[in-house]
Amino acid sequence: MDDVTGTLVLLRHGESEWNKANLFTGWVDVSLSEKGRAEATRGGELLAAEGLLPDVLHTSLLKRAITTAELALAAADRQWIPVTRSWRLNERHYGALQGKDKAATLAEYGEEQFMTWRRSYATPPPPIAADDEYSQDADPRYAFLPPEARPATECLADVVVRMLPYWYDAIVPDLRSGKTVLVTAHGNSLRALVKHLDGMGDDEVVGLNIPTGVPLRYDLDDDLVPTNPGGRYLDPEAAAEAIKAVAAQGKK
Amino acid sequence: MDDVTGTLVLLRHGESEWNKANLFTGWVDVSLSEKGRAEATRGGELLAAEGLLPDVLHTSLLKRAITTAELALAAADRQWIPVTRSWRLNERHYGALQGKDKAATLAEYGEEQFMTWRRSYATPPPPIAADDEYSQDADPRYAFLPPEARPATECLADVVVRMLPYWYDAIVPDLRSGKTVLVTAHGNSLRALVKHLDGMGDDEVVGLNIPTGVPLRYDLDDDLVPTNPGGRYLDPEAAAEAIKAVAAQGKK
Repeated sequence: MDDVTGTLVLLRHGESEWNKANLFTGWVDVSLSEKGRAEATRGGELLAAEGLLPDVLHTSLLKRAITTAELALAAADRQWIPVTRSWRLNERHYGALQGKDKAATLAEYGEEQFMTWRRSYATPPPPIAADDEYSQDADPRYAFLPPEARPATECLADVVVRMLPYWYDAIVPDLRSGKTVLVTAHGNSLRALVKHLDGMGDDEVVGLNIPTGVPLRYDLDDDLVPTNPGGRYLDPEAAAEAIKAVAAQGKK
Repeated sequence: MDDVTGTLVLLRHGESEWNKANLFTGWVDVSLSEKGRAEATRGGELLAAEGLLPDVLHTSLLKRAITTAELALAAADRQWIPVTRSWRLNERHYGALQGKDKAATLAEYGEEQFMTWRRSYATPPPPIAADDEYSQDADPRYAFLPPEARPATECLADVVVRMLPYWYDAIVPDLRSGKTVLVTAHGNSLRALVKHLDGMGDDEVVGLNIPTGVPLRYDLDDDLVPTNPGGRYLDPEAAAEAIKAVAAQGKK
């Protein structure tokens, strides 16, 4: 009964103003750059060219993912599909590093500490102070969450734990009903999902980078296991280029 | 307990490409013009200046309303709020007039017939043929509706009948829970809602015009009756200008 399970499309938001400025972003709600807007539109054109038209959309609560979805769906003429948003698809909370320059952080703490914070599976950065200008403690969009559920920092393992309930409770039911499901989110929330889908080990995921703006298609069997492990980027060459750029971040 | 009932904000989409071209639009899915995009952004700026920040959004399935909401919420920094879309908020289906030039229709049928189709409460235009290029019979967004529920033409009375279930079942519960609710829709679906809210007679609504891009605020009591009958436009002068422009349509 493979035919009743839908198709999953993952899309990382296009370049943001802070990607461009080389700052740690996390839950800070920054806009797409002009390049990022163009990437998002191109992502939607790739979906349309593939005939891979989403029936339903899931996004994070952050505008760089939401705007990416809006532009991509406008390009694919699918703005009318239902949408659900959740903080569980948000980018990893970067703790006290939010708002900090990546190159300066690398220089100050050294490559080992820098790469541990960026890529280790289980080591979060120091927590952000509630009164830090880049804290989201006063943000109305998270007001419904009691304090113990609102992160002050996260490692990738934390993201897996808070993302998976949304996968099981919101995305999987859409896939079970045969829909083509678009998930527009972030580098680390998508790494968490890809780790889960592809059954990657904690060490293996360290080397995984997800490019901005290139839709990644997963075909799934009845157990929600990919029949195309690793998925398939709709534009493999652009994806390879973008992966290189992501891996080089902080080094400029 | 007036304080537990939320606030309703109605927003008609900005100028579309077909408003500009003076064509009957109805369910045809046309884009906003550049002027319409600017109107939508201005609408969001008015919301932010008023401190009237929506907690939840309801839109039609048509891109001119969806894009208006996207641009307005981006301007008010509220892109993250939950959104629900429904065909019940769509513009009136204009039947066989869809895609026709308003001035040519006026010249061909005369002012009386023209105004009857445009403004009479209970007289729909002739139905559109299923194979008309401006029919939505093959549009996937309405595929879930059985044929008898899919209109081929509508008068305003028909719009009231198909819109009200959405008011009671989707919008009212949000208002009951104290939310500020933004409804981004169309000239005639909003006329239908305003007629209901203000208890207007079938004859009285004929003279009601709703301007594009200016948020209209209703404060409601526990019975969902406006405490400010007629509502309040956030920019009354712009609203008055725009109402004049709408009333003059077809005459150019």
